[in-house]
Amino acid sequence: MKHLTCGLLATFLAAALYSADTMAQAPATQQPLKMPTLEDLIPGGETYRYTQSLYGVQWWGDVCIKPEIDSLFAIDPKNGRETLLATRAKVNEVLRSLITPTDGQEQEGKSEIQHFYNVEFPWPDKPHMLIKGAKRYIVYDFEKNEFVIGYPQAGKAGGTNIDFTPEGGHIAYTVGNNLYVDNRPVTREPEGILCGQSVHRNEFGITKGTFWSPAGNLLAFYRMDESMVTEYPLVDITQRIGTVDAIRYPMAGMTSHKVQVGIYNPATEKTLYLNTGDPTDRYFTNISWAPDERSLFLIELNRDQNHSKLCQYSAETGELMQVLYEEEHPKYVEPQQPIRFLPWDDTKFIYQSQRDGYNHLYLFDLGKKLDTPQSARPETGEGSYLTHYACTPLTQGPWLVQDILGFNAKKKEVLIAATKESPLQSNVYKVRVKDGKLTPLDNGQGVHQAQLSASGTYLIDNWSSPTVPRCIDLRATANGRTTAHLLIAPDPFEGLVMPTVETGTLKAADGQTDLYWRMLKPAGFDPAKKYPVIIYVYGGPHAQMITANYMYAARGWDLYMANRGYILFTLDNRGSANRGLEFENCTFRHLGIEEGKDQVKGVEYLKSLPYVDGSRIGVHGWSFGGHMTTALMLRYPDVFKAGVAGGPVISWDLYEVMYGERYMDTPQQNPDGYEATDLRRLASRLKGRLLLIHDDHDRTCVPQHTLSFLKACVDARTYPDLFIYPTHDHNVLGRDRVHLHEKITRYFDDHL
Amino acid sequence: MKHLTCGLLATFLAAALYSADTMAQAPATQQPLKMPTLEDLIPGGETYRYTQSLYGVQWWGDVCIKPEIDSLFAIDPKNGRETLLATRAKVNEVLRSLITPTDGQEQEGKSEIQHFYNVEFPWPDKPHMLIKGAKRYIVYDFEKNEFVIGYPQAGKAGGTNIDFTPEGGHIAYTVGNNLYVDNRPVTREPEGILCGQSVHRNEFGITKGTFWSPAGNLLAFYRMDESMVTEYPLVDITQRIGTVDAIRYPMAGMTSHKVQVGIYNPATEKTLYLNTGDPTDRYFTNISWAPDERSLFLIELNRDQNHSKLCQYSAETGELMQVLYEEEHPKYVEPQQPIRFLPWDDTKFIYQSQRDGYNHLYLFDLGKKLDTPQSARPETGEGSYLTHYACTPLTQGPWLVQDILGFNAKKKEVLIAATKESPLQSNVYKVRVKDGKLTPLDNGQGVHQAQLSASGTYLIDNWSSPTVPRCIDLRATANGRTTAHLLIAPDPFEGLVMPTVETGTLKAADGQTDLYWRMLKPAGFDPAKKYPVIIYVYGGPHAQMITANYMYAARGWDLYMANRGYILFTLDNRGSANRGLEFENCTFRHLGIEEGKDQVKGVEYLKSLPYVDGSRIGVHGWSFGGHMTTALMLRYPDVFKAGVAGGPVISWDLYEVMYGERYMDTPQQNPDGYEATDLRRLASRLKGRLLLIHDDHDRTCVPQHTLSFLKACVDARTYPDLFIYPTHDHNVLGRDRVHLHEKITRYFDDHL
Repeated sequence: MKHLTCGLLATFLAAALYSADTMAQAPATQQPLKMPTLEDLIPGGETYRYTQSLYGVQWWGDVCIKPEIDSLFAIDPKNGRETLLATRAKVNEVLRSLITPTDGQEQEGKSEIQHFYNVEFPWPDKPHMLIKGAKRYIVYDFEKNEFVIGYPQAGKAGGTNIDFTPEGGHIAYTVGNNLYVDNRPVTREPEGILCGQSVHRNEFGITKGTFWSPAGNLLAFYRMDESMVTEYPLVDITQRIGTVDAIRYPMAGMTSHKVQVGIYNPATEKTLYLNTGDPTDRYFTNISWAPDERSLFLIELNRDQNHSKLCQYSAETGELMQVLYEEEHPKYVEPQQPIRFLPWDDTKFIYQSQRDGYNHLYLFDLGKKLDTPQSARPETGEGSYLTHYACTPLTQGPWLVQDILGFNAKKKEVLIAATKESPLQSNVYKVRVKDGKLTPLDNGQGVHQAQLSASGTYLIDNWSSPTVPRCIDLRATANGRTTAHLLIAPDPFEGLVMPTVETGTLKAADGQTDLYWRMLKPAGFDPAKKYPVIIYVYGGPHAQMITANYMYAARGWDLYMANRGYILFTLDNRGSANRGLEFENCTFRHLGIEEGKDQVKGVEYLKSLPYVDGSRIGVHGWSFGGHMTTALMLRYPDVFKAGVAGGPVISWDLYEVMYGERYMDTPQQNPDGYEATDLRRLASRLKGRLLLIHDDHDRTCVPQHTLSFLKACVDARTYPDLFIYPTHDHNVLGRDRVHLHEKITRYFDDHL
Repeated sequence: MKHLTCGLLATFLAAALYSADTMAQAPATQQPLKMPTLEDLIPGGETYRYTQSLYGVQWWGDVCIKPEIDSLFAIDPKNGRETLLATRAKVNEVLRSLITPTDGQEQEGKSEIQHFYNVEFPWPDKPHMLIKGAKRYIVYDFEKNEFVIGYPQAGKAGGTNIDFTPEGGHIAYTVGNNLYVDNRPVTREPEGILCGQSVHRNEFGITKGTFWSPAGNLLAFYRMDESMVTEYPLVDITQRIGTVDAIRYPMAGMTSHKVQVGIYNPATEKTLYLNTGDPTDRYFTNISWAPDERSLFLIELNRDQNHSKLCQYSAETGELMQVLYEEEHPKYVEPQQPIRFLPWDDTKFIYQSQRDGYNHLYLFDLGKKLDTPQSARPETGEGSYLTHYACTPLTQGPWLVQDILGFNAKKKEVLIAATKESPLQSNVYKVRVKDGKLTPLDNGQGVHQAQLSASGTYLIDNWSSPTVPRCIDLRATANGRTTAHLLIAPDPFEGLVMPTVETGTLKAADGQTDLYWRMLKPAGFDPAKKYPVIIYVYGGPHAQMITANYMYAARGWDLYMANRGYILFTLDNRGSANRGLEFENCTFRHLGIEEGKDQVKGVEYLKSLPYVDGSRIGVHGWSFGGHMTTALMLRYPDVFKAGVAGGPVISWDLYEVMYGERYMDTPQQNPDGYEATDLRRLASRLKGRLLLIHDDHDRTCVPQHTLSFLKACVDARTYPDLFIYPTHDHNVLGRDRVHLHEKITRYFDDHL
């Protein structure tokens, strides 16, 4: 394991690997192992081996709820004791009694529940659960077994983006491009203007378009005018005669949409829009409410994405009250998390920033306005920030906070997920707000996804590690002690032939940065043989391929191909996630080039191994990984023999404004960078076999990428291959995902 | 040559083959032969070996005109003597003098001609030529070397479909969707209505939309309302952001366009539309003028295409004057040639019909109206015809008339091209109108394309044969004697390695019909070896792959692949052209099925040959041939190992109304036929390797064919391959055609 250069990691990995190998090589049963098929290993496959889980497990206050199909259990987190809360038979009996003759026959049975997996428990103080029926949301008292109240929702009208406020008892949803609340239209905009939906193409952490105030009295929502954005025509060939499915797609440097933020008051049925001024080329991100509902916070970003401002707007007048904090960076700033007020102190909130090189928590004190705003250069030495309020770092160090899980108000702690143990891991910590004291709460291994109870005293800790497929534990935040094991999932690959998994690090092309790699070797690996290698690559921001999940997050296809006799290798190059700002932004303005150099370092390492056939190196990736695959095939034509690029970005000038300009600026600002990364200009360099795969409904990376690359190759007399998956969108999901991976497999079998 | 079962043909072929072999094996020079590249053999290639020709050779009355770049020659057809008629220097001197200051500097030089290849000589009685300049059409006196008259045309306005009447001196053209004459708008229709352009998707022999009357006083034109036709969206990916190029494409069984015929009078600037009644689901085809310009003839067809009517409309009132003749057939009738009046007798015209099984000439006598219309069953025993006038067959027999070349008014002869010698040939004959006496005029070999002089006394005979790349002779129609050899083209493949070409016949799947095949064997063929075979197939109506052209019309790619070591085989199955009605229409309502059975007969023959590797049979074709390729791969998965289907029809319900319904009826009328020939339903049968190639701007066979087949294959878990040629339309022409054939070549090299 000479490549494990990081001490802590080496220890951990060595242990993990030993266990992983043991697991794969010595199954519990003595029956002969079965060779898994793609149907076993690819999500969507008929016999897909899911890792067992507990669906819908959640908190009701500090009581853990465990739903099943026919029964609903409460679990006492102190001791894991289970109590039956409700049965489906009883609930449905009550629900059936609600059907009135006027509901009509076609509604009969529609209020019945099929299982308890998606009921919710948003009222910690009441024995109520929320049943999200197709016709209406029903609040059900599971102690008295009776109907409490029903909220008619948008089922009939085809409503989506449903957002229910348990506090206010209102229900928001969208029909077409307009927003409705409690069956009343909030907006009446023409086509081209979207209301109540996610905006800015889901960048900046935005995933939705409605934001209820804490007590549920007001609804903030996005309004996005896309009418000035050029349409990209996708063609739906499943109709009798093909039809156009036009999407508003602003390409880098082109006119973009304009976003506004509205506030709707269900009591008055009035809507107010924030007075932000001309919204052209501005991003309004990370909306959050003041605890008193009287103002709204958002983080505004300029189109250049190099200057962010934390702004407070009055919810009563819509006017800007103040700018609290600003950041500038010569490359980009990327706010992705709304501010969070401390539940026990309405004058303090937590702001997350990468200003010091890693995402960390900063505590702002609204009670301490500075006489003069304080401007400073952050620890990275790049950019600057400007604060109008006292601001203290709550967390610090060369690791990053991934998520705020919640608070323990009594102890005045904030609970977080962070990478402090290892960049591959995600562990749970409590941070004492008073002094930033950090206390680890979990077992220090693997990747933990935790839900915090209402009071912050218990966690549902859903975790896996390289040797553990999944455990779900209850854990006390007082001391991190496990109070109950809710699930120890069996190995999903039990009885199957499995490759071995190894990881390590190597030096990036800069000669100093450690990069993590993962290698899968076929079962029965013979070091005297020469194996072909397939590199699976992503390589872009916001993602990390090697994590301390089960089998280091090796994908089903990786396992399958290793079983077929390939070595599968993955390297998280510079530019990828969870390693901090500098690691990510060294690719600024020339996406794909530094990343490619790092991947070639991986190839050099592979070629140094006696059992690797250096003349048979393949590469495969999707999306950014499709760009990487194509770029590697073209920039290093003598290194890679065969590649499969899925949904590739071919030229950043065909990619959208939000993501693209963050990393590339506009084509007008950065013509050299766009030219150097336009793979069509390298089309003449294609030498190996390259299969391009694109979905005909790819709304993220439009088919023009691949089609215009084909044209460039035809012009250059080079010969890529092609496949198109009709009706799919930027990836092939569902049952067809097996077909996709069979297609990819055959390509490497044919050409590598 | 045991497969040459037809006596006449066998003799001919044997001679031809001997010569072909000799030609290929014993080149004139003794230098080592060069292996030709695709650039040498594919049209569009940088070093493409064109067969030499004489561009623009034509008649001026009875004087043969031979244009060159700098000079224009007259050739006396009696003896071949050449005279210089004009020089480019002199003509341009005159043209330059016409440029007036008001023409503006940007027009300077635009009236000059670059060569004489596209000047025309439509005035037999005047020493005038027509120079079709970008700005205007100029009549130039080449005896006096002076400008006669200029007709401003549509160059400035981007006009197309230019139609000049030398008799009337008017110029018609279209701009956008509207028709103009002499720079005045004739129609002012909105988008969706096309005027002055070809209609009915160029079926029924229609190739243009304007028809000047004999003296050039009136213009008949088509008006096609397509506004009710569904649009198919093609996507242009060469724009900054992809744009839709929507075409009106009526798919089988769907609402089709409506056509009207207008008559415009330039003298009055008035337009009259024929009063045909509701044009819904009617085809108005084969427009021609009465010699006196007072009426118009057209052949009307119902949407079912099983009932045609020769109609005469008044050009003065637009009213139907009479129906002269009708044909019905249980499958289809397909008029493709307008009537032709005898130049010496305005009461007689020639009608062409396949009613007796082969396309022949019928002489109608307007002077002999029948008291009662005569109805009869034709010789084929299928269908019926009904004539109101005396009607005599001019030609008869199991061969077909391909074209009327013109008339010899003095001798009262009609000159035709016909297949009387062999279905593979096209030879020139004169037919004595008095009694139908047929006299062959050419050498009885090969394929002749002839232009008849004004008086009908001489022919420019441009011909090739299996051993002759091209000759252009002058020939007297009095006795068929060659009076001059204008060109004997050298072998374009001189100095290149060439395969040998053989042809023969075999029995169709019906056990009785002779089918012609062509086989290319690699140079240096070794009968002791086993060769893989690629079948190149078209197979649909209106085309014939094996003709008695040079090397039996073997294509450049066929030669290339034979040189690579493949045997190339082509068979004209039942359903293809030039073999008569029954041969063609046996495929009615189930296109592709009988055709496929015949192709399998070809494979059986191939497998009977000791030098054929029966496990390595490939197939390739485009359009209908793409359908055949895909159908053969699916219906005979154990016969064909690899296929390349270009621009394939996958399902006839995605094909257009005119062509598709002729052979298939509508999906509503023939659901079983559509189902049986929908290749998507056979997607699960794919076993061999199949590459589908489609052009993204295929307006004939829209990309939905291939894309919906891919979806069917994904659903069925089968694995075709794909390539798309952006910007091309139903075939890959120009420089990219070399890329296409390299792509196809590689596929067979990889997978066959």
